[in-house]
Amino acid sequence: MPDQNLTDPAYAGHLDTRDPLAHFRDRFVIDDPDLIYLDGNSLGRLPKATLALADDLVRRQWGAGLIRGWNDGWFTAPERIGAKIARLIGARPDEVIVADSTSVNLFKLVAAALRARPGRPRIVTDDLNFPSDIYVLQGAIDLLDKGHGLDIVNSADGIHGPEEALRAGLDEQAALLTLSHTAFKSGYTYDMGGLTAAAHAAGALALWDLSHSVGALPIDLTAAGVDLAIGCAYKYLNGGPGAPAFLYVRRDLQESLANPITGWMGQQGLFDFGLDYQPAAGARRFLTGTPPIVSLALIEPGVDLLLEAGLDNLRAKSEAQSAYAIGLWEAMLAPLGFTLNSPREPHRRGSHVSLGHAEGLRIDLALIDALKVLPDFRAPDTIRLGIAPLYTSFRDIHTAMTRLRAVVAERLYERYPATAPVVT
Amino acid sequence: MPDQNLTDPAYAGHLDTRDPLAHFRDRFVIDDPDLIYLDGNSLGRLPKATLALADDLVRRQWGAGLIRGWNDGWFTAPERIGAKIARLIGARPDEVIVADSTSVNLFKLVAAALRARPGRPRIVTDDLNFPSDIYVLQGAIDLLDKGHGLDIVNSADGIHGPEEALRAGLDEQAALLTLSHTAFKSGYTYDMGGLTAAAHAAGALALWDLSHSVGALPIDLTAAGVDLAIGCAYKYLNGGPGAPAFLYVRRDLQESLANPITGWMGQQGLFDFGLDYQPAAGARRFLTGTPPIVSLALIEPGVDLLLEAGLDNLRAKSEAQSAYAIGLWEAMLAPLGFTLNSPREPHRRGSHVSLGHAEGLRIDLALIDALKVLPDFRAPDTIRLGIAPLYTSFRDIHTAMTRLRAVVAERLYERYPATAPVVT
Repeated sequence: MPDQNLTDPAYAGHLDTRDPLAHFRDRFVIDDPDLIYLDGNSLGRLPKATLALADDLVRRQWGAGLIRGWNDGWFTAPERIGAKIARLIGARPDEVIVADSTSVNLFKLVAAALRARPGRPRIVTDDLNFPSDIYVLQGAIDLLDKGHGLDIVNSADGIHGPEEALRAGLDEQAALLTLSHTAFKSGYTYDMGGLTAAAHAAGALALWDLSHSVGALPIDLTAAGVDLAIGCAYKYLNGGPGAPAFLYVRRDLQESLANPITGWMGQQGLFDFGLDYQPAAGARRFLTGTPPIVSLALIEPGVDLLLEAGLDNLRAKSEAQSAYAIGLWEAMLAPLGFTLNSPREPHRRGSHVSLGHAEGLRIDLALIDALKVLPDFRAPDTIRLGIAPLYTSFRDIHTAMTRLRAVVAERLYERYPATAPVVT
Repeated sequence: MPDQNLTDPAYAGHLDTRDPLAHFRDRFVIDDPDLIYLDGNSLGRLPKATLALADDLVRRQWGAGLIRGWNDGWFTAPERIGAKIARLIGARPDEVIVADSTSVNLFKLVAAALRARPGRPRIVTDDLNFPSDIYVLQGAIDLLDKGHGLDIVNSADGIHGPEEALRAGLDEQAALLTLSHTAFKSGYTYDMGGLTAAAHAAGALALWDLSHSVGALPIDLTAAGVDLAIGCAYKYLNGGPGAPAFLYVRRDLQESLANPITGWMGQQGLFDFGLDYQPAAGARRFLTGTPPIVSLALIEPGVDLLLEAGLDNLRAKSEAQSAYAIGLWEAMLAPLGFTLNSPREPHRRGSHVSLGHAEGLRIDLALIDALKVLPDFRAPDTIRLGIAPLYTSFRDIHTAMTRLRAVVAERLYERYPATAPVVT
């Protein structure tokens, strides 16, 4: 179909018909087909296999198996699921482990990295990084009390990562470069390999937060030479609300880095119960306490779906869908005052598209309340449209854009207050 | 009935008939009535209400509610469930919050305590403390790198806490006294109020790990003047495998202590997304990352059951049951080489009874494999019999003791290898 029909709903149907991944939508619980869900970048949908697993976990594994569950797969779950996530991010199976929250994992790896680079007082990041990551850095600096400083490089436009300034900030003072691979607000996606090489050239370590890219685009940590990484399992991995996070430590660094939160799950000989901590071999030493098994185990079916679909296929669909969304924005929404708050360049975008509007918050509230569209909102003005290629259809995107237009064109947002909703 | 009939199974039936809490057993999923479960001190049974909640959580709250779940109870779950746990431990509702694992919570509170007592280089604990707690202390000392030292006071017999030596070790050098309220191996239960007062008299803070006492015996942190506490939700609270833990910070200390792992869940104004961490008011500042909602929410029904039954009632039953178990040990097992590895004094015991035997490990394996009894084993020789008064019956205890006797009398254990099982 020619481009002039971009806004035609029939074109969305045509694109869905041609989508080789369309059938994966049936693998998810979708109980209200009229609800347009564009927040899979914040909380992924529920895979049908996960619903079945949850029942098995609680009723059979816990209820009937009781303590025996630990020997029947619970103890090995952090490594087993970690090895599957490793396949999504170009890591070796023994380099990834599921543990704790993204923030706690960041704390562990930052503390380990700073201890591995004594005499280098600077941590380099930027203002597109997730604020929680910056809070963790601040807390670690305060706790260590060794005079570390945090360089928060500013983005010129709040959309594009300040890559040149970041490179310029890497010198013999830098211990660590840490960034979000895909920025939570604009979706800007960094040149991971180039920036990691720049960190290494300066003698610093590189730590990437993959939360907004893992499961949405192919990542190759090995090819990029990345030292350390963390990531979230409840966004594009569809692991469930607050699902435990993962961490990556490159194999050759594992034995030389120290986990600062040394608990029994990271101890060599879990049940030796000696009184001197001896770290386990490999990535397991970065575990700490007993993991929340139900939330942890529920990660696995979502990861399996991504592996089945293939990241290259998912990325191709995501790029087509975000280009489609941007085309619709230009045709239908730009005239109504919406700005594009994501990069134009496809290779610089993750899988969400951010639109700005002076009435962004009230528009978001109206969409959720009156029009059955669920995006999310990030202050001061950004509506994020998350594209999860496993289950987002082109029709979803077209419908959302049509409803977005209606909210502004019909001034539906005026009924809503300018107070902040609380959604992740 | 007179004492001479203690070993008569009919006496166990008689005790069950008179047990006012017996009906609570029906509130749990018990799919194999012939299985004797005495490991509720390690992983509590599945409440029926939890099974129903798990389905609701996954299918309705996540599957249908999607991101809206955060506003429909997920964000407030750490405080809401914390306030209920507070009622079990004599704390005010705003002093307890559910977060992370016991070990991570210990790390947070130890780091906060050491920073609140500068110039005091010693942490005082003992060798009955859970090894993971000691690992956390070692890790925090290494990370802070300020010359702190750890005094691990030795128990004379491995059963009784060295309370006098602990008091003697508290001086102007001590920053912190930290102990397990009920020791994981022997079940010894400390004089919390007396030791806390001794810590305070020396100018130190007191931090108690309640993992093996919470839900099994009444605790009054307020009356004991305790500063800090942590505890586990998957033992007597029946919260599910690896359920998130809780932490307690006395109200007047909350504003002066700093959480070292500063993440967005502990930030004032969760969605402000400013780049300077500002701690939330109250206990919420001790949160870090996004909590594992499914595992977290599943804690609540088990806590509700304990509140419904009442801790004083549960303690009365637990004392009667552990006295009964010890009576049966004396009559049936002591002649076969079993030792009592728990204190004799009822007020010094938690809710598990530990028996020692030179063939302890093989006996444990035989019980599990051939005789459908599930206790647990702690090296080198201790079989732990966990009494969970919400669902353990006197018949359970009698049957377990009879089967324990058979394992040794009939030398059934000889078929089993002396290799360590992996159970918590």
